Amino acid sequence: MSTPSLSPPKVLAFDVFGTVVDWHSGIAREVQALRPAVDGDAFALAWRAGYQPAMRRVMSGELGWTLIDDLHRLILDSILPQFGLIDLTEAQKQHLNKAWHRLDPWPDVLAGLRRLKSRHVICTLSNGNIGLLTNMAKRAGLPWDCILSAEVFRAYKPDPAAYLGVARIFDAAPAEVMLVAAHQDDLAAARACGLQTAYIERPAEFGAARPKDISPHPANTRHATDFLALADQLGC
Amino acid sequence: MSTPSLSPPKVLAFDVFGTVVDWHSGIAREVQALRPAVDGDAFALAWRAGYQPAMRRVMSGELGWTLIDDLHRLILDSILPQFGLIDLTEAQKQHLNKAWHRLDPWPDVLAGLRRLKSRHVICTLSNGNIGLLTNMAKRAGLPWDCILSAEVFRAYKPDPAAYLGVARIFDAAPAEVMLVAAHQDDLAAARACGLQTAYIERPAEFGAARPKDISPHPANTRHATDFLALADQLGC
Repeated sequence: MSTPSLSPPKVLAFDVFGTVVDWHSGIAREVQALRPAVDGDAFALAWRAGYQPAMRRVMSGELGWTLIDDLHRLILDSILPQFGLIDLTEAQKQHLNKAWHRLDPWPDVLAGLRRLKSRHVICTLSNGNIGLLTNMAKRAGLPWDCILSAEVFRAYKPDPAAYLGVARIFDAAPAEVMLVAAHQDDLAAARACGLQTAYIERPAEFGAARPKDISPHPANTRHATDFLALADQLGC
Repeated sequence: MSTPSLSPPKVLAFDVFGTVVDWHSGIAREVQALRPAVDGDAFALAWRAGYQPAMRRVMSGELGWTLIDDLHRLILDSILPQFGLIDLTEAQKQHLNKAWHRLDPWPDVLAGLRRLKSRHVICTLSNGNIGLLTNMAKRAGLPWDCILSAEVFRAYKPDPAAYLGVARIFDAAPAEVMLVAAHQDDLAAARACGLQTAYIERPAEFGAARPKDISPHPANTRHATDFLALADQLGC
């Protein structure tokens, strides 16, 4: 997978939902804490399934610029009936909506990020809003050098403005930035902008009972089982 | 100075140049490392004196949006002749321009921020660009939860968009945000937007030989000698 001729990246930019944190079990746990009878697995999948379509409504211009917190709430309101949750109070809905701020990292993340940070600038590049990402980092102890978000660029990934924006902020060439993500489509869009790419296997992203395809794609600069393995590959 | 009736702030937003880091001695040291004969004190003061006028050229529309790194370079180029530095190489000029990324914090800062972080979200609110602030934080070990900059809001302080932008990002009321700064004009602008304010004494900001007025202003929520004293006042 590796391309030894490339220079080591100056900046590692991390996708967050699925790559850094386990949204599936976090959302399932939070809804079941409110209502034990709800199918947490199905609820998490339904909520997440609304994510890409909601961002497309923003990027198409149908909706004005909207933070992910607000898109999460739109999607939540739309799925509450099918899960028998329309009687939640407004305070309960607001609390549940912020479950995305309280997701736990995968087990390798904290140790992996600390190692990667020793030799690289590490930042987020997430469609999540800055407040969400900050609250998540503070709660989980994620040691980002900087929190970058679609909110800074007013463009959701896979818009090139997001990937190229990271390079611009750090006065770096695109090839000096590596996107780290568990999603091949995100990596492909970054690669089209000239970034290096590292694929991270997160087979349980959609739940342990529903393993996802984690096949290597030869176009990625790196392919690693987790952040510790990426740190090994980068010599951190 | 304190106004005990106000709720504790949720977010502490810090001015950086002068409040967190000692730009005067840092810039003086760096220019003297290049050319020992230069008057480092005068050089630092001259470079910094160009800062507010340069930002006014941007906010008036005379210049398009410009990062502080680029404004620093414009000012640097304009003062090189008077200090006999026109023969610096382009690489030396670029290195010197990034001296603003390599400034050291005041002695109380690291311990103070760690205490303040334990009970508040701590972020920058600087006119410095994100890359500069990230490099500075990484080098100095500044433990920000989040790096916010005029670059995020495309508005330099004292534009209200910068102060109100911090509240919006954290889904907070303006009164839930406290600006921490060593400059009364910055604090006055924040107060006009409804933020709480904390003045920090940095008598040696312009050099130990040129102590500045650190008189309390009764309109500030807090007045503290340094970040440790502010942590005491906020019960951190």
